[in-house]
Amino acid sequence: MSSANQLLAEICGVGTDPVRGGYSRHLFAPAERELREWFTAAARARGLRVDTDRNANLWAWFGAPGADAVVTGSHLDSVPGGGAYDGPLGVVCALAAFELLRAEGFSPRRPLAIVVFAEEEGGRFGVPCLGSRLSTGTLAPERALALRDTDGVTLAEVARAAGHDPAWFGRDVETMGRIGAFVELHVEQGKGLIHRDAPIAVGSGIIAHGRWRFSFTGQGNHAGTTLLRDRCDPMLPAAELVTAVRRLAATVPQARATVGRLVPVPGGTNVIAARVDLWLDARVPAPGSTRALVAEITERAEAVAEQEGCTVEVREESYEGAADFDPALRDRLAGLLGDAPILATGAGHDAAVLAPFVPTAMLFVRNPSGISHAPEEYAEPDDIDHGTTALARVLRELAG
Amino acid sequence: MSSANQLLAEICGVGTDPVRGGYSRHLFAPAERELREWFTAAARARGLRVDTDRNANLWAWFGAPGADAVVTGSHLDSVPGGGAYDGPLGVVCALAAFELLRAEGFSPRRPLAIVVFAEEEGGRFGVPCLGSRLSTGTLAPERALALRDTDGVTLAEVARAAGHDPAWFGRDVETMGRIGAFVELHVEQGKGLIHRDAPIAVGSGIIAHGRWRFSFTGQGNHAGTTLLRDRCDPMLPAAELVTAVRRLAATVPQARATVGRLVPVPGGTNVIAARVDLWLDARVPAPGSTRALVAEITERAEAVAEQEGCTVEVREESYEGAADFDPALRDRLAGLLGDAPILATGAGHDAAVLAPFVPTAMLFVRNPSGISHAPEEYAEPDDIDHGTTALARVLRELAG
Repeated sequence: MSSANQLLAEICGVGTDPVRGGYSRHLFAPAERELREWFTAAARARGLRVDTDRNANLWAWFGAPGADAVVTGSHLDSVPGGGAYDGPLGVVCALAAFELLRAEGFSPRRPLAIVVFAEEEGGRFGVPCLGSRLSTGTLAPERALALRDTDGVTLAEVARAAGHDPAWFGRDVETMGRIGAFVELHVEQGKGLIHRDAPIAVGSGIIAHGRWRFSFTGQGNHAGTTLLRDRCDPMLPAAELVTAVRRLAATVPQARATVGRLVPVPGGTNVIAARVDLWLDARVPAPGSTRALVAEITERAEAVAEQEGCTVEVREESYEGAADFDPALRDRLAGLLGDAPILATGAGHDAAVLAPFVPTAMLFVRNPSGISHAPEEYAEPDDIDHGTTALARVLRELAG
Repeated sequence: MSSANQLLAEICGVGTDPVRGGYSRHLFAPAERELREWFTAAARARGLRVDTDRNANLWAWFGAPGADAVVTGSHLDSVPGGGAYDGPLGVVCALAAFELLRAEGFSPRRPLAIVVFAEEEGGRFGVPCLGSRLSTGTLAPERALALRDTDGVTLAEVARAAGHDPAWFGRDVETMGRIGAFVELHVEQGKGLIHRDAPIAVGSGIIAHGRWRFSFTGQGNHAGTTLLRDRCDPMLPAAELVTAVRRLAATVPQARATVGRLVPVPGGTNVIAARVDLWLDARVPAPGSTRALVAEITERAEAVAEQEGCTVEVREESYEGAADFDPALRDRLAGLLGDAPILATGAGHDAAVLAPFVPTAMLFVRNPSGISHAPEEYAEPDDIDHGTTALARVLRELAG
């Protein structure tokens, strides 16, 4: 019963980040490749058939692959300095649930599979849910393959180096067409379950969200010799924008707007920056409100750039409209799990990318810290076992 | 006569930075090690005797090493994304000047040497003039060796890997004791010579300057699930401080205060930062005013941190009081160079570290862009030749 906890323990040393704390497991970096090998071995040891699709997503089949499959899974990559559960929990509970089903001699009517989607967090190339977006065709492969990491290396280059053919990347009708239903189990990323006597919730939907890059350009120069009046320092409008983001978002009900990544270029202590890139993560529940907030923020960015003699360029790096999970499936799973609570979430998931194409649901496992994307993220071992049991019950119901 | 320009051309491909533009040549990184080898070969080809001192500074002697030496030189490391001249110009003009002296059969009365100081910019370990500070004893070796680069690696570790014994680092009375006079030639880092009919100036002094690290700590969390009211986001006080630095510095005559380096940790787009480190570079001409300005900024940092439920820790990473170069030497060189203009500078140099210990002077070569620490930094080939000639004249005068 504690197989999921054992599996988590097996990977607790992979991709630890000595500088940030927590884990940094980025697409095709050594730690992520180690996790791919680990998953392949763990799935094969449980009698599953493993292969990799055109977009570097991993698949493990309970029996023969086929149409109308019930698919579960999540991802193994992390944000920089992330927690141990966001992503891996859905993978280890899936492996453990399959083991339970195998042990009881379960013989599914429908094909059953686990999927591990690539680069869900966008930690290396900036665009989240890269694997699921490519496979569903919601992201063009030519755009994805040209994305660069912070070292300036493209996705095409690292994919090739990792043994994947970039020419093969793109919409994958055959693989996606097999999915009859998708259920993603995930650690809860808020406080929705802390004060309830329930370890598991069912997801209702995901609010619209996106990422925008603001590049402020000024004139790089020497910090000691350039008088204040002679400066076009892009750090000034960048800082003004960070405070404006908070101020403007605070006027919109339930809005989340965050600048968590900001990079002065060149980034020397004794150097006035030539450029500052900052990334805005914005998510607002009311329809149409996310882009409306970003439009206001963009207007402000242009005003503060001009004040310092700088320019600003704004680029939408990703946008995902609100996703409502299949209401019938949601209610069926909540009933099956003893009237499990139903929670919406502000976090993005591959499930949101798949939801427009196929009946999709999510299960959330209680997180006593209420914190995610940080080392404090947590799930109790008992709750993880509840997650495995709940997922096995769902798979038995849908595929049996 | 164009040897200095030829030497610059030899290294124009070393350490180019494809992401930032310009050059990134940091202590013991491959590009900087290549430059060390290049300098050693170039000096030996000119009949100079090369060795490395206890603190990884390179020395090239015209004849036998000895006391009361006339020493020139500069550095080969760069800021991140810096120009081609800051540092290397003083080294190539020194090599070319030695070549001129050799060609004319100059026989010095005093020993003559070129020094290449290590990590002048502090681009890797944060503390500028690391080599000269260690050798003069103004920086304790135990503090220096514990400094970490952005990958978390210590100076002790990289020094050892590069073949230097960290136990040997520290005050070097023997090597420093040999210097009878130090003359550093450097590209001008402002507009002091642009509108004058003079390619070369003599330095009068360097204003007080230092570096302070402000670390704001909050609570890392998920950018999509954490409501604004539940956040302790250290990016907010960091941004407030950037704008406050400009506002407070603007009230102090001639003050320069810059935030050119700012690092959110972990730095993910969909992650509220747990910590933001930012570095303040501050320089004010009036005595005592640099630290007074920093005290005001620190007070403000504490106030803005508290507003967001964050904390802030401030650490002085380096401080160098105002340096006045030897007035007699300055006037002697200005006269020798045909009444060359005399300029003060806001830039730091190894010459400022040496000035309290030994008669020290600087020569500046005109920079038509007026820009430094950026790819636009420039010196005309003719002006570089003027630099070589002027330096040769100075060495002939002092050592002849």
